[in-house]
Amino acid sequence: MKLLEDRILKDGIVREGNVLKVDSFVNHQIDVDFIAELAKEFKRLYEGEEITKILTIEASGIGIACIVAQEFHVPVLFAKKNKTINIANDVYTSKVESFTHKRSYDIIVSKDFLKPEDKVLIIDDFLAMGSAMQGLISLIRDAGATIVGAGIIIEKAYQQGGQMIRDMGVRVESLARIKSMDNNTIEFIH
Amino acid sequence: MKLLEDRILKDGIVREGNVLKVDSFVNHQIDVDFIAELAKEFKRLYEGEEITKILTIEASGIGIACIVAQEFHVPVLFAKKNKTINIANDVYTSKVESFTHKRSYDIIVSKDFLKPEDKVLIIDDFLAMGSAMQGLISLIRDAGATIVGAGIIIEKAYQQGGQMIRDMGVRVESLARIKSMDNNTIEFIH
Repeated sequence: MKLLEDRILKDGIVREGNVLKVDSFVNHQIDVDFIAELAKEFKRLYEGEEITKILTIEASGIGIACIVAQEFHVPVLFAKKNKTINIANDVYTSKVESFTHKRSYDIIVSKDFLKPEDKVLIIDDFLAMGSAMQGLISLIRDAGATIVGAGIIIEKAYQQGGQMIRDMGVRVESLARIKSMDNNTIEFIH
Repeated sequence: MKLLEDRILKDGIVREGNVLKVDSFVNHQIDVDFIAELAKEFKRLYEGEEITKILTIEASGIGIACIVAQEFHVPVLFAKKNKTINIANDVYTSKVESFTHKRSYDIIVSKDFLKPEDKVLIIDDFLAMGSAMQGLISLIRDAGATIVGAGIIIEKAYQQGGQMIRDMGVRVESLARIKSMDNNTIEFIH
């Protein structure tokens, strides 16, 4: 999506260790009017699909998911990063590995809000190694719900996550797919 | 706001220790179309005020703030709960005490996104003891920015936070103000 690629080139900052900072409009400060344009594109891409719920993961997915959900008029459910050791019976849980922070954590959603009849669109800001996405898919499958697909703002296409998730049979729509970020030059796949 | 009070009476669950669970529409699952109605009320209440930015705190404030921000057409900035010990020079930081989780933590915002010329509306889901709100106010004052006011979905008016923040000279608009939750009966102040 050209609008997004242009914004990434203008405001994205490449940091050491293959980190792309989009803190000024996606991740810390959220440009809601801009994200609303991305939401329209997700709506267009998933036009005709029945969707009953949008699932994301805290924290940086929540704002984006809420703006996207306003296009689809369905509730957002966000998986919480679990801080307590005892897992309650009334939640689905899954493990996510964070390569950025070099640790793993559990994510949970209440069984009250994810049901077999749900048709779920996953929304997240980044797709890189795909661990968070795998965790969300696992929660949906545990609930017996249907995965309609995933909507990603930025996919680091040089990492394995996108291919891995697509190989699982899940539709993935990424609005920007980064081929490489070498020498501070961001190149996209079209 | 009657729409909100009715929804709290219908879907809110009172738990031991004065906890009000609104997980089905505010805090874990987010009813975005419903929150959009609350956003219109915040817009009405702050009509005529110049607002350049909405500030909230992760995680449960983010979705609400993004929906409210779409009424005002300004960016959302969310304070992050700091996990690292070393505080960078490029952030404002403040301490928040969590009475629910019985611990304190630091919150941070990047200096890049909070400037002296900003006129800030604070949005959050709950106001109880007021510690998170105090932390956010402290960040805004450190930046030399102007606090326009706060928009709260649910104020536990029997706790001290609301009075304390108003006594600091900050305008607080709460869409539902709970007087008591004794014996599982929720009573509101009008």
